[in-house]
Formats: sequence, C-alpha cells, structure tokens
Amino acid sequence: MMPPELRCDPVTGQWVGVYTDNSFSPSDYPKGNHRPPQKAICQFCLEKEHLTPPEVDAVRLQGSAPNRPGWQVRVVPNKFPALRIEGNLDSKMEGILEMTRGIGAHEVVIESPDHNKNLCDLREDELTFVIQKYQSRFIDLSKDKRFRYIVIFKNYGESAGASVEHPHTQIIALPMIPQAVLEEIKGAHQYYVKHKACVFCDMIKQEEQDKVRIITQNEHFIVFCPFVSKYPFECWIMPKQHQSQFHLMPEAEQRGLAGAMKEILLRLKVCLSDPSYNFYLHCSSTYAPRASRSFHWHMEIIPKLTPGSGFEWGTGFYIATTEPSLAAGYLREVHINS
Amino acid sequence: MMPPELRCDPVTGQWVGVYTDNSFSPSDYPKGNHRPPQKAICQFCLEKEHLTPPEVDAVRLQGSAPNRPGWQVRVVPNKFPALRIEGNLDSKMEGILEMTRGIGAHEVVIESPDHNKNLCDLREDELTFVIQKYQSRFIDLSKDKRFRYIVIFKNYGESAGASVEHPHTQIIALPMIPQAVLEEIKGAHQYYVKHKACVFCDMIKQEEQDKVRIITQNEHFIVFCPFVSKYPFECWIMPKQHQSQFHLMPEAEQRGLAGAMKEILLRLKVCLSDPSYNFYLHCSSTYAPRASRSFHWHMEIIPKLTPGSGFEWGTGFYIATTEPSLAAGYLREVHINS
Repeated sequence: MMPPELRCDPVTGQWVGVYTDNSFSPSDYPKGNHRPPQKAICQFCLEKEHLTPPEVDAVRLQGSAPNRPGWQVRVVPNKFPALRIEGNLDSKMEGILEMTRGIGAHEVVIESPDHNKNLCDLREDELTFVIQKYQSRFIDLSKDKRFRYIVIFKNYGESAGASVEHPHTQIIALPMIPQAVLEEIKGAHQYYVKHKACVFCDMIKQEEQDKVRIITQNEHFIVFCPFVSKYPFECWIMPKQHQSQFHLMPEAEQRGLAGAMKEILLRLKVCLSDPSYNFYLHCSSTYAPRASRSFHWHMEIIPKLTPGSGFEWGTGFYIATTEPSLAAGYLREVHINS
Repeated sequence: MMPPELRCDPVTGQWVGVYTDNSFSPSDYPKGNHRPPQKAICQFCLEKEHLTPPEVDAVRLQGSAPNRPGWQVRVVPNKFPALRIEGNLDSKMEGILEMTRGIGAHEVVIESPDHNKNLCDLREDELTFVIQKYQSRFIDLSKDKRFRYIVIFKNYGESAGASVEHPHTQIIALPMIPQAVLEEIKGAHQYYVKHKACVFCDMIKQEEQDKVRIITQNEHFIVFCPFVSKYPFECWIMPKQHQSQFHLMPEAEQRGLAGAMKEILLRLKVCLSDPSYNFYLHCSSTYAPRASRSFHWHMEIIPKLTPGSGFEWGTGFYIATTEPSLAAGYLREVHINS
C-alpha cells in the first residue's frame, strides 16, 4: 500500500492527507443516515405553527396569516438557542480569562411544510424560495451592529448532529468571527497581497484546467471536490464570478444555486446511499471590508462517512480516505432523476 | 434560559460558548460507549504476536523472546498505517497546489496483554510501563530528521474512532507541525513575548487560585477542566513544573502521570457511565526550539458525549454544554475504588 499524499491548502496553509492508492469507493463506507429519534408531534409540520416561537420571516400564499398554514418556507427563532438576541456583550477579564455574554441570534429555516421532503426532493423553484430566505435573513441580521459573523448551516441525519428530522437549516449570528473562518479570511488576504488575485478564483481556474475534480456546473456555479479535501466526498459549490459575500449574490443567480445544490445533494444521496451530511456557507465578514477582493464565498458540503479520530481532533490534521478526483468521478457517474 | 457565556482561549485567542445556566449534568448525556465490532481473532492478544508486524519495542519478562508471549506492553508498526516510514518527501507544486509524499511513522502501543483491561484498570506500575514506552518511542522517532511532530493519542469506543477493541494507544510522526498545535505554539509564543511568562504556567496559577475547576493533583501533576473548554467534561493533565516537551519528563515523574491518568480515567468512567473518549498529548515541536520557554506540554482528554454539529465543524466555534467548574465538581464527587 502506498502512503497517502500530503496536500497543502492554498488558502490556510493547512496540510491534509489524501489516500491516492487504495482510495475508498462508495461501497467501502457504512450505509445510510441514522434518523434522529422521532417525536410524537413535529413542531415544524403544517398546522403545528403555534408550537414554535412566532415566525420572523416566511414565503406564504398571498393573504395567509403569519403563524398559520399557507407557507412554503418559514423562519422561526430557535426554541433552544445557542445564543440570545437580547442584551449587550458586557465583556470582562478575570486574570488571564476573558469572557462575554452569549449575545447573538439563532434561527431555523423550515425548508418545506412536508416532513419527508428533503432539500434534494424540492423542485428548483421551491429550493429557490429557501435560498431567498437564507439571503433575506442574512441581510436583516447583518444590520445588527453587535454581530460580526453569520453562519448558515445544515445538519442532516443523527450522526451529523440533527436532533429534529423535519427538513431545516439553521442560521447563527455571532458577536465575533469564528476561528476557522478567520484563518480562511487571513490566508486569502495574504494570497491577495502576494499575487494580486483571489485565491478562490485561482482555484476555479485550476479546477477548470484539471477538469477531473469538477462534478457539475451551470452558468453561475461550479461544483467540485477540492484538491485539498479534509473529508472523503467533500464537495464545494462556488460562484464562478468573484463574490465576497453570499448576501450580495444577484437575484438572477439564486436559481443557479438552487440547481447546483439540488443536483449535488441528489448525487450524494444516490452515490452514498443517503448519507448524513453537513453543509455550511463560508463568507467574508461584514467587518472585514478589505476582504471584499480577496475572499470568495462558497458552500462546503461534508457527508459523514467516517467517525473521525482523536488524531484528527487533536491535531487538525485530516486524512481523506477517498481521493477527490475519484470521488468526483463516482458522483458524476451515478444516474439521477432530477 | 440564559445564553451561554462566551470565553476566549488565552493561548489561541479562539472563542467558545459555555452553558453556565442550564448546564447539562452527567445524566443528560447518552450512556456508555459503543464497542467496536468484534473480530473472531484479536491480533493484539497474547499468543497472537505473529499476526502483527514485528515489534519495535516492548516491556518483557527477562529472557522472553521478541514477538512471543512474556510481554506486558508491546509496540508494533500499524498494519494499516496513515503514513509510511520509507522514502523521501519529494515535494512538488502544480499551479497553486502543493503536495508531498506521506512520509511518517504510525505505531501502536498495546497497553496490556489482557483484552479487557483498559488503562484505568491497570495498576499504577503497569500504567507506568505504558508511559515509559510512550516516552522511549517519542525519543526514538524524534531522532529521524524527516519528522517535525509526534502525536500520541488514543481512541476509546467506536464513536471516538476506535476500530479495534483491545486496549491500545497510537503514535504518529508527521513531516510537518499540524495546524491545531501550530496555533497553540504561536499563541503561547506571543503570550511569552508580551508577558515574559508561560501562558500554561499562568493557567495553572489561576486554576490554583480559583480552585473550582481542579479535579485532583499530586506532587507533579494537576488535573482540571479548563475554563475555556471546547467540549463538556474536557479534562487536562499538566505537569506543575514548566516542561515544554513530554519526552523530557524526568523518570521520577512517570509514576505521578500514571496516577493522575488512572484517577481521571476512572472518574470519567464512573461519572459518565464508561463513555467513549479520546486523549492526545500536545507538546512543542523539536523544530521549534524557541518554544522551550513558552510551550508547556499537556494531555487533553475528551469524552465523546455529543455528536457535534455542522456549526462547530464549519466554524471551529465550539459550545460546551456543561460548565467546566460544574463538570469538575461532578468528577470530584464520584466514588472510585482505586
């Protein structure tokens, strides 16, 4: 057996290992996602609107009243928020220890009234509504000057951290830029200073030249398995034109993102037997205006195929057991009915 | 419900959220670890020595032959290594992509001939033998000039990434310093430049002053739940005297480390119903000689109590659902027969 190849992330300088010889195929991973424990009543279902906190936004049939049926997408505050919207930060130091109150926002985007329709089962126009709500909440939360960063993410399947089955995405607004994103913003800025170019735009150029890691593309978006993948079958969706911020994406491109998301989520489902997965958007911070030229927003989709190990958690050194061009090949080849 | 408190890591500057109000108690977490799938024959058991690659080190009865019974601790190369020891790095660039061969070492420390005796079940003198082998392998691997960093880590239970049940620890030597450790080394160096002191020594001082997060201590080691915990019930073992490198620990302190490890692993087992866990050592690199004053080695022990979430993986922003001083209290209070 050959050793894995070590690859250096052009954005963060982080090294990963990639199995090139003896790369795992889809059938080498355990099958299926574990559904979160079922509750007797689903608070995100149609006609259960009174069980959630009052909605902050929705896509609704004309004339339908808030917190009543008639919606296609609903955004509500999380009942068990990771952070709270009320109050001030009240930072303090005790010796070398610095702390602050957990001010932020935590919202849930209920993607469909249908309990059993996941993102990949929605029609493109339905998925476009979901993306519109991602954008409108992002814009609204950006106006609050206490928040420095907004994260849009999804947990699908129990091993990906989902505790509610009904299809939903989460949005968290934070009073600071989280570490993993800060590393990307810094690395991209350093690359820009050195090369007078966006490192993500250069990644797209290289992917288009190498071709092997591209899964699909449309007019506005490219979907690929990055050369430096931390996880097997990791997929990125990236706008082809330089765009630092998700919420600045023109309306005309929303449908393109919906098409790209639907296709890659379907391909992952068929290829890997409905795996648990996470996705998250990485954007520039509204507090890093200099990053508008150097940063390029993108969505990272990570199927949960391996449990991970103390080695990875303890070092941040990840080993992807499937080589990205092979993963892209498997994903391109599966037949989907879209 | 109060929002979690946000706390800033004095070493890396990374922020975490900590549940202070509504902090989870041990009974709020799912019970027990999932044992990895059983194999018909365990290659790490007594009289199965021929099934592993030839041993590189062992603690043996005088006169017993290598790769035969008569051992108490055995170190063997990993049959399925994450990295390979033979060859050169052969680094190359293709466009913006940098890669190198996966040169390194991957060894397994079989902690006991007894399949069912975990680290916390060993006598202190038996555990001391294990620690001696950690040290001797660390020293031997450090001599190879291709390696920049050595990681000693353990996966216990399936959800912690264990694939073999027989008690064992793993050692990986890497040709670069992994990102998470590099952040710590850099942060500690910056603190040293600013304060002319080791940030970890200052952490110990503050823990001794605050008292509430200390679980136990002996002459040479302190065991505590750090103020900035990423995970609930995260525990650190740290030498009380400044020591940058694990392999420089004096022989007289090995027994103290064994005592501290045995006690905290037993307390975690009783308090949290035998959870899956990981531990890993963070040391300075032999390639960062300037870090000898600023870095302080320590062992981080992380019980696997929650599945994690796309929010944490996507941002590096962790939320610990049990407040560290409460976690330390639960761990102090449980009755153990040691």
